Amino acid sequence: MTHEAYMAEALQLARQGLYSTSPNPRVGCVIVQQDQVVGRGWHQQAGGPHAEVHALRQAGEQARGATAYVTLEPCSHYGRTPPCADALIQAGVARVVGACRDANPQVADQGYQRLRDAGIEVIEGVLQAQAEELNHGFLKRMRCGLPWVRIKMASSLDGRTAMASGESQWITGAAARADVQHWRARSCAVITGVDSVLIDNPSMTVRPQDSHIEQDEHLWRQPLRVVVDSQQRLALDCKLLQQVGKVLWASTQPAINAHRASELGELQQWQAPANNGHVDLHALLRHLAEQGCNEVLIESGAQLAGAFVQAGLVDELVLYQAPTLLGSQARPLLSLPFEQMQQQLRWQWHDVRQIGDDIRFILRAPTGSSS
Amino acid sequence: MTHEAYMAEALQLARQGLYSTSPNPRVGCVIVQQDQVVGRGWHQQAGGPHAEVHALRQAGEQARGATAYVTLEPCSHYGRTPPCADALIQAGVARVVGACRDANPQVADQGYQRLRDAGIEVIEGVLQAQAEELNHGFLKRMRCGLPWVRIKMASSLDGRTAMASGESQWITGAAARADVQHWRARSCAVITGVDSVLIDNPSMTVRPQDSHIEQDEHLWRQPLRVVVDSQQRLALDCKLLQQVGKVLWASTQPAINAHRASELGELQQWQAPANNGHVDLHALLRHLAEQGCNEVLIESGAQLAGAFVQAGLVDELVLYQAPTLLGSQARPLLSLPFEQMQQQLRWQWHDVRQIGDDIRFILRAPTGSSS
Repeated sequence: MTHEAYMAEALQLARQGLYSTSPNPRVGCVIVQQDQVVGRGWHQQAGGPHAEVHALRQAGEQARGATAYVTLEPCSHYGRTPPCADALIQAGVARVVGACRDANPQVADQGYQRLRDAGIEVIEGVLQAQAEELNHGFLKRMRCGLPWVRIKMASSLDGRTAMASGESQWITGAAARADVQHWRARSCAVITGVDSVLIDNPSMTVRPQDSHIEQDEHLWRQPLRVVVDSQQRLALDCKLLQQVGKVLWASTQPAINAHRASELGELQQWQAPANNGHVDLHALLRHLAEQGCNEVLIESGAQLAGAFVQAGLVDELVLYQAPTLLGSQARPLLSLPFEQMQQQLRWQWHDVRQIGDDIRFILRAPTGSSS
Repeated sequence: MTHEAYMAEALQLARQGLYSTSPNPRVGCVIVQQDQVVGRGWHQQAGGPHAEVHALRQAGEQARGATAYVTLEPCSHYGRTPPCADALIQAGVARVVGACRDANPQVADQGYQRLRDAGIEVIEGVLQAQAEELNHGFLKRMRCGLPWVRIKMASSLDGRTAMASGESQWITGAAARADVQHWRARSCAVITGVDSVLIDNPSMTVRPQDSHIEQDEHLWRQPLRVVVDSQQRLALDCKLLQQVGKVLWASTQPAINAHRASELGELQQWQAPANNGHVDLHALLRHLAEQGCNEVLIESGAQLAGAFVQAGLVDELVLYQAPTLLGSQARPLLSLPFEQMQQQLRWQWHDVRQIGDDIRFILRAPTGSSS
């Protein structure tokens, strides 16, 4: 077996934490002794043991002289748990193969260095791109103090999201709607605008029964639901506040007495800096990153989504396109008041596939544009 | 080798006539004697020998007792050439394997019957779907008296084809624009609206050098270029009339003296029935079918293309989508003034692939909607 094959297994393990590890990264570990996997581990939840610790426990004495495959540089600092680099040293592993470096300034190459200082051979960069992909949110937050920002949209072939009247159920099919649950579930926060709340009154929770995600129930957590509401127009009896889970109410106004509402859901109020009278979106994202949000999902109308795009704050578009034409009077995908071709925003294809009867596009902002 | 394998070879031969056989269908023929291919043929041009004749000539005496694979039922009538069914009988083939039946009322199962009457074994329907696909234009014209109608469009992710000002160069890349040449080349007619001619002044010819089509030069023919111009606003010094090839000028008005223009290109005038003051599009398509047009391509603005779609006259959408956002003020894909979701037009995915940096969708009208 090659380094890549063992690392691929470690990445598969890491992916099991897709919906649960935040604010921590998703990490997997495989311990190999004489071409036999003797330990496997993945990080499940913040505060619980790291991937290396799970794998070392399973390997026991067989870890001595073994090779450890880790998808992220082992930590070297005392957080909620002791440093994993130390655990690997104490277990007597002979070699550590790593995929990507930790961008956490508290780790920043010190994990690998600590291993090398202890006489352990270190090989870096095996399946690095795949490992970075799995934690692009965590890595961006560490590097830039901003979360990975994803917009989810559903449109017709002619780029329309609803009739002029607002009628929109349903453009995409059940499979696409179930797929959306997957993006919500992996997000730390889901952002919408107050108009969507007032008009559609969504709950915006993850509904495991509606998704196709196979994962133990205790490994789900509801994302923080964020309402952008500059002028505090939110109706406090909305569905959003009648669900388990936290809601962040972002406005440019001081907090009001929302005691009655907060008895239902967990309502946090946040007075955002204003930008032309609106919630400053960059500040909002920075605030969410400070709260430990690695990935955020924008599920809103054309206005708010367009504002995020125009501000260059979006890393990824997830666009479900249904094989239908809604016509030229229907609502636009994004409010973007461009007049000249040179204002166009070019993206890069990342993934295109069929989901039920719809096509799902994933596009990324050109490298460096938002990060 | 199976029947399907030999038929696949015959279909490959037939495809060589993609750009040249109209108004005739694309047909290929393979003659097999004792598991050896002894003759291959394909129909090149109307008036020239049919596929069977080419293949039989090549097979010579070895055709006796052989199996002939033909992608379309052999003709049984005297057209510009004698019936192929008779040629197969005279050559002494023992068996004919056919892919699809001819929809030409002059053939209509009489070809197969003639063979059976002569004691030849006939097997029908081998790779039938693939064979019908290759000649959907010819078959539709024979069955319905209408050509196969394809609309080609290029848009952004948000379904826009140009800025509000009309600025549109370029949304899609060079590879997509070269791919368009392929659709033009296989079409018998290319339809546009007078506004596109007045604004963009296109030549609308097939430019072999701009395409990636590999084909001998004598196997190209320029499609008829059709301008829909209800009120005869065409400028007679337009590029369209300064190219080799025919132009059909369709208006609701009587023909005018356009002698000067017709010296340059070959200008035909056609007074169409009016429908609300506009050229009746159904009548136009019927007229083109009467001229022998199997496949027509619509390359026009949102208004005319939308009118064809709304009239239910379109079989296929070919949509190139570029990974860009042009914004909510940009021009719509198709003018379709729908107000309710129930007016939406649903299509069926036929093909999705990457062409350069763009994605090309091919969608078909739900079966029976236009044919």
